[in-house]
Parts: sequence; structure tokens; C-alpha cells
Amino acid sequence: MSVAPAAQQRKALPPGFLDAARAMFGDRLKTSEAIRLEHGKSEAHFEPMLPDAVIYAHSTEDVVALVLLCGAHAVPVIPFGAGTSIEGNTLAVQGGVSIDLSEMNAILEVNTEDLDCTVQAGVRREELNVHLRDTGLFFPIDPGANATIGGMAATRASGTNAVRYGTMREAILSLRVVTPDGRDIRTSRRARKSAAGYDLTRLMIGSEGTLGIITEVTLRLHGIPEVISSAVCGFESIGGAVDTVVQAIQLGVPLARVEILDDKQMMAVNRWSKLAYPEVTTLFFEFHGSPAHVAEQIEMVREIAGANGGGEFSWATLPEERSKLWKARHEAYYAAVNLRPGAVGWATDVCVPISRLTQCITETKADLEAASVPATILGHVGDGNFHVIFSLDPDAPDELAEVEALNHKLVQRALAMDGTCTGEHGIGLGKQDCLIDELGDAVDLMREIKRALDPQNLFNPGKIFQL
Amino acid sequence: MSVAPAAQQRKALPPGFLDAARAMFGDRLKTSEAIRLEHGKSEAHFEPMLPDAVIYAHSTEDVVALVLLCGAHAVPVIPFGAGTSIEGNTLAVQGGVSIDLSEMNAILEVNTEDLDCTVQAGVRREELNVHLRDTGLFFPIDPGANATIGGMAATRASGTNAVRYGTMREAILSLRVVTPDGRDIRTSRRARKSAAGYDLTRLMIGSEGTLGIITEVTLRLHGIPEVISSAVCGFESIGGAVDTVVQAIQLGVPLARVEILDDKQMMAVNRWSKLAYPEVTTLFFEFHGSPAHVAEQIEMVREIAGANGGGEFSWATLPEERSKLWKARHEAYYAAVNLRPGAVGWATDVCVPISRLTQCITETKADLEAASVPATILGHVGDGNFHVIFSLDPDAPDELAEVEALNHKLVQRALAMDGTCTGEHGIGLGKQDCLIDELGDAVDLMREIKRALDPQNLFNPGKIFQL
Repeated sequence: MSVAPAAQQRKALPPGFLDAARAMFGDRLKTSEAIRLEHGKSEAHFEPMLPDAVIYAHSTEDVVALVLLCGAHAVPVIPFGAGTSIEGNTLAVQGGVSIDLSEMNAILEVNTEDLDCTVQAGVRREELNVHLRDTGLFFPIDPGANATIGGMAATRASGTNAVRYGTMREAILSLRVVTPDGRDIRTSRRARKSAAGYDLTRLMIGSEGTLGIITEVTLRLHGIPEVISSAVCGFESIGGAVDTVVQAIQLGVPLARVEILDDKQMMAVNRWSKLAYPEVTTLFFEFHGSPAHVAEQIEMVREIAGANGGGEFSWATLPEERSKLWKARHEAYYAAVNLRPGAVGWATDVCVPISRLTQCITETKADLEAASVPATILGHVGDGNFHVIFSLDPDAPDELAEVEALNHKLVQRALAMDGTCTGEHGIGLGKQDCLIDELGDAVDLMREIKRALDPQNLFNPGKIFQL
Repeated sequence: MSVAPAAQQRKALPPGFLDAARAMFGDRLKTSEAIRLEHGKSEAHFEPMLPDAVIYAHSTEDVVALVLLCGAHAVPVIPFGAGTSIEGNTLAVQGGVSIDLSEMNAILEVNTEDLDCTVQAGVRREELNVHLRDTGLFFPIDPGANATIGGMAATRASGTNAVRYGTMREAILSLRVVTPDGRDIRTSRRARKSAAGYDLTRLMIGSEGTLGIITEVTLRLHGIPEVISSAVCGFESIGGAVDTVVQAIQLGVPLARVEILDDKQMMAVNRWSKLAYPEVTTLFFEFHGSPAHVAEQIEMVREIAGANGGGEFSWATLPEERSKLWKARHEAYYAAVNLRPGAVGWATDVCVPISRLTQCITETKADLEAASVPATILGHVGDGNFHVIFSLDPDAPDELAEVEALNHKLVQRALAMDGTCTGEHGIGLGKQDCLIDELGDAVDLMREIKRALDPQNLFNPGKIFQL
């Protein structure tokens, strides 16, 4: 991973800017080293890049005022939620202001009859589901971290439920966005579908704060299914596990979740979450539906797994058992990184057409067996998406170089299979070369849109592509 | 409906353009009045606006060559598929060249294991499903007309299956697009999900040919369900029918199709398709799934319908019975327009949050009872989307004025309910004022994107908004 050239472009804040900002935001403007570091580091292997100041917004009006001020002084502005992205997406490459939206955490409206809700960008996904509990509805998108809804929208996040319920791309009905020229717009109405002009909602989803700052999100919700049943099943081989998923998807089984964890990842999970699963390649399943419909799904999947070297299914049907199982899954990234004390993480993120998944994973597994850096495989295999998680010694440059090379090889393998370099983490700083390998000239179109909407290049500059 | 001011901006073709185009395309360039009229009229109430020439493209390379030629001569270019759009989307407001893609109708690749396919833009939806028949897969999106896939992408079309399978927004994995500067790009890879930069796929879907000319489309397909069961059920009141749908959606019944046809629409369908349904407000249902799952869905819906004044369900389970039923539904637009011989159609297209649908439809029905122009209601009520179809005397300006006023009132009603002016027909020429009422300043963002990607304003100029 080469740090983007934009890192050289850091400029000092212009005189008068901080005074003007302090006059507006008082002690919600912070310049302490500790808070700047908190907003200028990441959970992955990137060097910290600190903003010059952090401002806590409390309203869309705050964001508009700050954007106008930054525009007048040509100061970069980087939206910040929970800081859990892992491609360096929130690092202050050119300095400027990190605008922290975490205190904009009100749930504004829940329309149970319409199965939707509107929240401020700083609401975290777990809080939203706690809030929804009594309505019989839930919000399915669940990246590993307890991210903010705004951050999840900005990186087009997904998670374990995407195979059934889609990603943030499908989950969002409308956004409230502040544009680089300080306009406060809503991208769509609350109708389920619309053919009213350009799809600004989808343009903003995944734009990583480079085109607009998302302040409110209207989300589709889903009814909590009558029956939820989770199971864990170990396999003789990684190929058998992947084939099981591919065949179930091809047969149209509406799996709610299906996650793969290889032998090393299971070892990490056992250590980190104090569990005692067999340390073999394992699938974590979840089935949603009516009693009869769930029973049908289970019967089909059991048969497919049996034919592919799967063992007994170990069931978790009670809510507390299920929570324990999926908590272990959600902590898998941290479990893998901490295979070595003091290590930092690097997660790859390719996604390929499902027919190519077995080959992609087995070839990758062979590469990892020959590598010197500890690494696990886990992923959302129902979508064709999986991660390799490297546990990297931050003080060993050889390891960084080795992982860079392995990641490059994996991305090229996925692209050759008509896949993508990133299923859900975004481009940020880490995948800009990959994006060009993946989409070629289409990246120029992105640049033209960026230049049109942000002519001063102040919104999260240096991310996704170089201008 | 006020014809856009751009209609005044028509210029003659510059000298030398036709000769240059003829040198490239030979007799695939047509300038006869008949062919220009075919490409310059619409199925709705708009006055014809003829292109100066029509060129039949046979490849993406043809499209690139034509776009470069048109760019060099500042000649507008309007992509044309089947010409079945109904907001004047393909009319040549400023003249120029209609580029007809209907002969680019090859099905390039069907990946049965990945449940996807890639087709040229001119393939029609019915042909695609005939081609797919032996694979066990189908493509669900079905606007009333037998539209081209490229046209359906360009207008973000949907149809009767969207409640279960989504619209063109969800159906498309990737597009091949020629941009106004003649670049030939692919917007995405074939992976099911991706977080790789701006969502150019969704930006092009619904852009009505104003940002790019779609030449190839990669589509998600679905397995043909084990059981497909269709039913028709009459209701005592329109409110009872809509309430049935709303309650079924809120309970999470995965309806594959649910269509409303009011009493007048049923009369039109009986006449046009030579059927003998009771002429009362009727729901057309379709259920997809395993035998047990379909039986469960039917039981729930029957109970809900019974509680809302629904009568007996009349079943169509054999393929030929189902075809007959849905053929009648697909011809409903033509049936309604032809309630009066020689009439032209005007279809409204609002879509509202489902909790507001009963009120929206019942208030609209009351307006229609008081109107002098014959009108029917039909729609995709599972999405909150319905159409009023007016059967308009083209020689009676009073009728046009009356329908304009009724449409305006309906759009304002939908917007007040946080709905949209168009669920699936697009903006074209007919809804530009509505779009501004709906999205306000956000339309300026669309204009900025348009100016950035098409600085000469040559791609379908005068559509969606005025620059």
C-alpha cells in the first residue's frame, strides 16, 4: 500500500479560521493532540494523519455553517462517525477539520406501518436495533464494528445479512446531505421506488464523504421473522464449505446469513471469545421465516452440506445462544488481529461471482499457507465476498511488503474472475490503484463528478482517487 | 403539461454532417418522414417531435463513432429502443439524431451458475425470458410494454414483480455505456456487491439517456419458483382492496405480484381482452415459493382479504391460465386508453409510502368520479405505486386542460404524503415541474452533474430538467 501523494499537500490552517470557527462552535471545537489523534488514526495499518481541528456538530445547520466557513477559507473537511472504517477513509490526508457527527445521534422517526425510519447520521447500528426492539422490526445491515449509520452509508457497508437483505445500497430510501457549496438537500422522498431524475441517493452512498456530508438517513426496516434459527457446521475441507454455500445460493435457498471461518479463524475466535468450537473450516448459518419455511430451508442445506463433507449442525435457537454465536462472529476481526499481541490488522475484501468463489478461496488459502504473516479467512460467502485478515507486526517492514504483495495478488485474482477489489470496505486510501485496475476510464467519470460538485476539492480530499 | 421551452431551440443539422454520417453508416442512416415520425412520436399525449435522422447502431463501436461525430458537429443524439416510454422521453426536442439500438439485440452471455446474464441494450424483455426458459431462470421486471432492456434501464422501469424482486435499480449488476465524450466504459464488475467508488451504475439507471448511451446490460436473474400460483379477488370497495395489500405487506407476506384494477379498469380489460370478470375493484395476486410456503402465504392473504370485504379467490395455477391473466393485466393500459375509439393515453404514476396508499387512492377515485374524461385506476399497490389512465380525446383541448389539472392535484397529494411524482415512468418532458416540486435544490445537483459529463448538452437535451 503506497500512501497517496496527496499526503504531501498538507497546508497550515489559514489565519483567522480557528477564531471564526470557535466563535461559531465554542468548546465543541477541539484542537488537543489526543482528540486530533483519535480522529486521525484508523483501526488498520495506516499511519495516523491528524486533522488540525475537530468540531462536534449537533445539527444539519451546524454542518452547513461549517461547510460554508471551510469553503470560504479553503479548509478541507472530513466527516467522522465511529472511526471504524479500515481503508483509511477518515484520515486527514491534507489536514483540515474533522467534523464529528457522533453526537447527532437522534432517532428522528420510526414509521412502523411503512417499515422505515429516519435517523441522524451519528446513530450506531446496535443502538438503532435496541430502539426498534419493541416495534417488531429490525435493521439488518451489520458490519463487524458498531459503526454509525452515516458512516455505513458513506462506505456502502454491508455485513452478514446482505445475502438476504442487501447492502446499504438497498437499505436506504433517502438521505439528507450537505453539499460542498453548503446546500442542504434531501436526495429522495420516502416512497419505496421512484424514477424521479438522477439517483442522487445511490450517488452519495459509497462516496466516502467526497461529494456530500450525510446528516440524516431514511432506512428500510424489516419485520423480525417468526422463527430465527442459527447453526454452526464444520467441514472436512474449505472447498466443501464453499461449495455448500454456492449450491444453496444456486438452488435459491433464502439464507439470511452464511459466513465462512477457516480453521485459523476458528482458532482465533475460540481464543478471543473463550469458546470451544472444533478448529476446522466452519459455516455459520442463520435461517429466517415461518416455522414450515425455516424447516424446509434447513432440510435443503443439511442435505447439501452432507454431500460436501459437512458434519453435524450445532443449533442455536434461543436468543441468548444466537447472540453469543453472532457476537463471536462480529468480533472475528479483532480476534484475528490479536493472534499476535500488539499486532495491527489488514483486511482484504474481494468479492467475486459465486461460480468463481471456490477457486478464489482455495487458491488464496494456498497462498496464505506459504506466507510468513499469520492470516485467517472469513467472509460473507453468500455474496461471493470474503476477507483475509492479516495480523501484522507494525515494526516489521518486511511483513508490510509481504502483505501488500499478497493483497495485490488477491485483487488481481478477483478482477480476473470479474470480481471487485472491495465488497464493502470502500477505496479510501488503500485501494486507489485497485480501483483503476478494476474500472479503468470509468474512474475519470468519477473525477469529473467530483470536480463539478466540489471544485475546491475540500470534501475528504485524497480519498477514492487522486484528482 | 407544458411543452418544455427547449422545443424552441431546434436547429438545422450543420452542413456536412449527414454526408459524414452516411459515409459511416450507409443505409443504416434514414431520413424518411415515416421513420423519423416513428422515432419522434410517443405512445402518450405528446405532440410528435421528429429527429432529423435515424441511425441504426449494430455495436458499441458504432455508438462511439456516432457520438464522436455528433460531438464534433454539435448535433443532439437521442437513444431509442422500443419507443414505449410515456413521458415523451425519446422525443427529439431539439432535433438531431435518434440512435436506434433495437438491432443490437444479442443475448451475449447467460451465467446460470451466477444467476446473471449480459445482453445488448436492444433485447426486449419478453425475448429474454423466452431465451431463458430452458435454464430454469427468469428476468422479473415487466413494464406494461415489451420494452427493451436498455430503455428499461434508462427510465429505471419496474412493473408487477417489483414488490418482490425490485426494480431496474436492483436488477442491474453492471452497464456498458458510451459517454458524451465518446468513452466506452463499464460501470461495474459482475460481483453481487461492491464498494468500489461512486455508483456509476445507479447514476446511469434512470438518467434517460442524458448522461450516457447504454449499450450492454448485465442483469440479475432469479430461479423460476417451484410453485407459481395466481389468483383474482373482487372487493366491495376500493378501500378494502388497498387495505388488504397494505396489511399483507406490513405482515411481511412475500407477495410476488399484487395489482389493483378498479371497476372501470376491469370493464376495460373485459372489453379489450374478451374476458368476463366481475366489474368491481379487483386484486390480481401471484405467489411464488415451495408448495408449503405458497400455501402459507395464500392462507394469510385470504384471511386478510376476507376481513376487508374481499370475495372468493379465483385461481390460475396452470401456466396457460396464468399467462392469460397476466396478459390481460399487461394490456390494461391499452385497454383503458381504448375505452374511447381514437383516444390517446395519459398515465399518471405517483408512488407513496404504503401507510398513505388507501387515502391517496380513495381521494383520487373521488376526483375521477367527478371528472368528465374517462379514467381508470390500476397499479402496483405492493410498492405504493398506482396509475390513473385517462382516455383523452386528442381534439378536445378542454380535456387536456382537465387532465393536466387532475394530474397536478394528484402529484401534489402524493408529495404531501412524502411520495414521488413518478414511481417508474421517469420525468422526460412531462414531469419537469413536478421534479422541482419534489426535490427542490437537489435538481441543481443533477444539473451540475449533467453539465460536467455533457458540457455541450447533446445527450437527449431538454429531458428531466432545463439547463
